[in-house]
Amino acid sequence: MDHAIDLLDPGKALDLSNIRFQLIRLEDTITFHLIERVQFPLNTPIYDASALPIPDSKLSLFDWMLSEQERVHSRVRRYQSPDEYPFFPEVLETPILPPLNYVKTLHPNDVNVNAKLKQYYIHKILPAACTSARKEAQETFGSSATCDVYLLQALSRRIHFGKFVAEVKFRTETERFVELIRKKDTEAIGDAITNSQVEKKVLERLKLKAKTYGTDPDGASGDGGKVDADAVVAMYKDFVIPLTKEVEVDYLLQRLDGTQWEQ
Amino acid sequence: MDHAIDLLDPGKALDLSNIRFQLIRLEDTITFHLIERVQFPLNTPIYDASALPIPDSKLSLFDWMLSEQERVHSRVRRYQSPDEYPFFPEVLETPILPPLNYVKTLHPNDVNVNAKLKQYYIHKILPAACTSARKEAQETFGSSATCDVYLLQALSRRIHFGKFVAEVKFRTETERFVELIRKKDTEAIGDAITNSQVEKKVLERLKLKAKTYGTDPDGASGDGGKVDADAVVAMYKDFVIPLTKEVEVDYLLQRLDGTQWEQ
Repeated sequence: MDHAIDLLDPGKALDLSNIRFQLIRLEDTITFHLIERVQFPLNTPIYDASALPIPDSKLSLFDWMLSEQERVHSRVRRYQSPDEYPFFPEVLETPILPPLNYVKTLHPNDVNVNAKLKQYYIHKILPAACTSARKEAQETFGSSATCDVYLLQALSRRIHFGKFVAEVKFRTETERFVELIRKKDTEAIGDAITNSQVEKKVLERLKLKAKTYGTDPDGASGDGGKVDADAVVAMYKDFVIPLTKEVEVDYLLQRLDGTQWEQ
Repeated sequence: MDHAIDLLDPGKALDLSNIRFQLIRLEDTITFHLIERVQFPLNTPIYDASALPIPDSKLSLFDWMLSEQERVHSRVRRYQSPDEYPFFPEVLETPILPPLNYVKTLHPNDVNVNAKLKQYYIHKILPAACTSARKEAQETFGSSATCDVYLLQALSRRIHFGKFVAEVKFRTETERFVELIRKKDTEAIGDAITNSQVEKKVLERLKLKAKTYGTDPDGASGDGGKVDADAVVAMYKDFVIPLTKEVEVDYLLQRLDGTQWEQ
């Protein structure tokens, strides 16, 4: 959740330096949670309801824990925040806290790439990052799923922050984007939001973070790092950055809906 | 939870190098979670049920989230693990997963210092560590309590690992401890389990970790570290280490109960 950025203040919520700070900060959160997760084996049965059935549920252990966590967090209004998107919208309950007055910074939209993110997470990101020699250890099933929930929620938040980035870009170059959006020129919108130099810098910084945070500074736990830095970089390069762009493009494609924008 | 140590295997569960590895590893977990928590203000109302009432509950927001988390985790058998102790034993439910065969490594005991730990956490540890200039920010209440839950659970696990340490010490120097336990000589037991050299090393290593993990390796977020390294050291020096010793002593005082040990 990590709302160090103030989403109640319209000036700050769309301030690019604030958004940038938040995205860089989330790299730490994501790296920390991944380091925690990969101390356990991959534990594939927790993602497979047929391999490890949950009584009175069709969900896998992991899905069960994620949905339960979302249900509890919905009660403290997590999903009222414009940067939080659920994986299981059907389980959300009415908050026990009064609503907050979030500024309406984003255009109304229904963009949510969590289903895709979860598939990538289970089938691509985790298998590449979990390098534990142990194939499976049932006493770590609950611990693994707990770490998964923290990590996946942080990844989701990072990726859906793309909406704020897209809104800022739209406001900065409104004319250009209105034209591309009217034409539904997805490719050109994708090009317009891409900054290869920034992406390269993100990946370099991430590698350095994975190495630094994944190594005992006094060498107490031996030579090996606690996380494969290349797997962290690949996670961002192949999934986090592309999904963020997808969020940005999908958001922009809906940016003129219901408005009389420059007709 | 982080069960990198294998508590199903009697040889490993009481292997001192395994226990040591786990304790060092938990320093990372605790430091990571504290770094996450202190990006938010102290937010005192979340610990005070009169300041922020929860409908149909007498709990503070923080206690409500912690008890809900424990309820969910109890269902995936978290509290069957010999290194996990609840803060709200009354909310635990029957697990949805079949029980695991944990080896009986520990002597039966009812040692649980969580009530004390929670008070120290709220009134001492957090106020010292939360250096955010913002006094309070209600949009970070849920996020703060979420981080608190992760951190407090990790601290509890670290502290109650003292039972394994005490058991190893008892098995190594049985005669000496049986005598001290029979005399109920709490002070002498405390002296017998204390290794000032190791404690000094823990604090030095912790300071280095807090500085390393709390600083962007490429300096992206400016000069200031993300966590006050001295506050991390003080947390261990003043609370984690003393509470661990308390767990060790209390465990040893019950170590002969119900046995005919060398009568």
